[in-house]
Amino acid sequence: MKENARIEAFSDGVFAIAITLLILEIKVPPHDSIHSIDDLWNGLIRLWPSYFAFFLSFGIILVSWVNHHYLFNILIKSSRHFLYANGFLLMTITFMPFSTALLAEYIGTDYVKPAVAFYCFGGVVNSAGWYLLLVTIHKPVRLISMGINEDMVAGVKRSTLMGMFVYIGTTALAFWFPIVALIINLLLWIVWITLSINAKSD
Amino acid sequence: MKENARIEAFSDGVFAIAITLLILEIKVPPHDSIHSIDDLWNGLIRLWPSYFAFFLSFGIILVSWVNHHYLFNILIKSSRHFLYANGFLLMTITFMPFSTALLAEYIGTDYVKPAVAFYCFGGVVNSAGWYLLLVTIHKPVRLISMGINEDMVAGVKRSTLMGMFVYIGTTALAFWFPIVALIINLLLWIVWITLSINAKSD
Amino acid sequence: MKENARIEAFSDGVFAIAITLLILEIKVPPHDSIHSIDDLWNGLIRLWPSYFAFFLSFGIILVSWVNHHYLFNILIKSSRHFLYANGFLLMTITFMPFSTALLAEYIGTDYVKPAVAFYCFGGVVNSAGWYLLLVTIHKPVRLISMGINEDMVAGVKRSTLMGMFVYIGTTALAFWFPIVALIINLLLWIVWITLSINAKSD
Amino acid sequence: MKENARIEAFSDGVFAIAITLLILEIKVPPHDSIHSIDDLWNGLIRLWPSYFAFFLSFGIILVSWVNHHYLFNILIKSSRHFLYANGFLLMTITFMPFSTALLAEYIGTDYVKPAVAFYCFGGVVNSAGWYLLLVTIHKPVRLISMGINEDMVAGVKRSTLMGMFVYIGTTALAFWFPIVALIINLLLWIVWITLSINAKSD
Repeated sequence: MKENARIEAFSDGVFAIAITLLILEIKVPPHDSIHSIDDLWNGLIRLWPSYFAFFLSFGIILVSWVNHHYLFNILIKSSRHFLYANGFLLMTITFMPFSTALLAEYIGTDYVKPAVAFYCFGGVVNSAGWYLLLVTIHKPVRLISMGINEDMVAGVKRSTLMGMFVYIGTTALAFWFPIVALIINLLLWIVWITLSINAKSD
Repeated sequence: MKENARIEAFSDGVFAIAITLLILEIKVPPHDSIHSIDDLWNGLIRLWPSYFAFFLSFGIILVSWVNHHYLFNILIKSSRHFLYANGFLLMTITFMPFSTALLAEYIGTDYVKPAVAFYCFGGVVNSAGWYLLLVTIHKPVRLISMGINEDMVAGVKRSTLMGMFVYIGTTALAFWFPIVALIINLLLWIVWITLSINAKSD
Repeated sequence: MKENARIEAFSDGVFAIAITLLILEIKVPPHDSIHSIDDLWNGLIRLWPSYFAFFLSFGIILVSWVNHHYLFNILIKSSRHFLYANGFLLMTITFMPFSTALLAEYIGTDYVKPAVAFYCFGGVVNSAGWYLLLVTIHKPVRLISMGINEDMVAGVKRSTLMGMFVYIGTTALAFWFPIVALIINLLLWIVWITLSINAKSD
Repeated sequence: MKENARIEAFSDGVFAIAITLLILEIKVPPHDSIHSIDDLWNGLIRLWPSYFAFFLSFGIILVSWVNHHYLFNILIKSSRHFLYANGFLLMTITFMPFSTALLAEYIGTDYVKPAVAFYCFGGVVNSAGWYLLLVTIHKPVRLISMGINEDMVAGVKRSTLMGMFVYIGTTALAFWFPIVALIINLLLWIVWITLSINAKSD
């Protein structure tokens, strides 16, 4: 228990820092490009790709943290396999400020396709990290009480796989319809939050 | 309890990081613009907008954290609604290093109006986040003990609404008198701290 | 107890972030200024002001954290006054990455005096923050058990005042002998660590 | 126990922040250098030194954190010597975002040797920090229960010394074969993780 408490604390730290570093990608309109009040208003409006990317990634990391939080609630111990799988998952979270900045920089340009494909591929790797973490709950050491929460873990595994397939799909889609791929990403976590909110709260 | 402990830990992380990232907006006077000791002194003095913006936002985030801290003291459990409302509130906090940097960049220029209006509007959204969070204390699941602390929550709701109206007012005011709007912001949290310090300490 | 636990967690977060952000002031020698392997070695060596400033500030924040840690060990509750005094202290800690970057930029130049004076003045404000925090331990609410640890608090108050006078002295000294002022700063925390290590460990 | 809890929390904060700040060294390909979709793909591919350096340092800090975590599990109290030795260790961790950025900048250039040597030397200092920390477990105050875990501490000491010698070796090797030195670094922590995963999990 105490052991898991510290893994949670470290993970919370990484989640909290990654989610807060997202703001560093939104750059103040540089002073020397502003020659009137309207310029500054336009400069702030032209930052919409940054606002959007910030909002999207904030939502994704928040949902990840909530899921992480509920997963840890049912664990009764940890293992080294779990520890390193968790580390890999955190690496995919830590990577998000970069792919978010990439998205923000190119979403409003002619070069949006690589940026969106890269971003969605990050989702594939993140899902793989989740799946790996879920596998280590049973192997090599059982980390949950026998017979309890099996359904829940199985359910999370299924939705993780489903999420992975959606991200694989949006990664491919990004080569033709990047904006559609992005909107699917956005819907994915809005649906996720809505569904989970309407599920029986614990 | 344990559940809330982790939400607190994550929230504390976000508050602590957002408040510390504020310092990144204060830029050291660039070496190539400094040709004498007096130049450096002047460079440090000309940073006053940055110091002011840092001080203002530090105070606002600190007051937010203190309130968050007292609110969690009376909760006995959490819900998914509460979790996501808290996430939205944290997003408005995370946004502050950007609006602070914007303020610092333009407060001493002719283009101060958009910067102050944007900053004050951030306060409106933040107040809305607080209000949303307070609503989830009763709906859909009751998160405080029956009959206890109802007055306190009602009181906090009232002052949150009042704060929101002040921020709406200063956002509008910023289009004509940005400096006055800023001073009201500054007074708002100084008054808040003074009042809360003089209230019966718990 | 639980209340103080969360103040500690928030404070630890701010200390940990401020101490880690120090590294951001050390900039990698820019690629376009490097034309040979020796250039890169020289570039790394010419970063000595940054290494020194990093080392100095890391030490000061670490000592502050250790003291903060021991102070909280003897507290049995908190008050709003204490909470805001602690917030002010944290603001002076949060400020350090800026004054450290300033020091690193100008320590090896002809404009070292303002940088050192500014840095030392930060120490004055930090000491004032400590003193204020120590005052709130007794007023308006008593935060330590009656009759216990009074000597310790009185002792810490004395050394805080002493530290403040040293910083006032080095701030003044920096206008004539900035390097001497810096060395005194460095010695101050080395002496502090040595003394506290040799004191009866608890 | 409570005391150690706070040292753990502070250390976890520093580990979590240092590991997350690594992402800041990966810079989005600048917009003005991109003139076609292929340019952006190439720009993302040319970032491989940054990805590699991120991955390497993430692994090293993660392994460090895991070891730190297991070490604290066996401690029953702390001392000021231990506290400052831990602070020194954290300083070497905090330094990693800089040496990682240095590595990322120069790994694909003709000037790779100083960057790798500097990076490996950071490993030497980090190992020295670990060794110092392990020494303070017995001196001046015993921080583990008599007769228990002695073998484990002795074993960790041995592997720390071995790690230090490997890093000294790779630092020297970097002057002739920097890439080989880097690969040894990479293997070192992959072997470490593999070994520790296959060891009896606790």
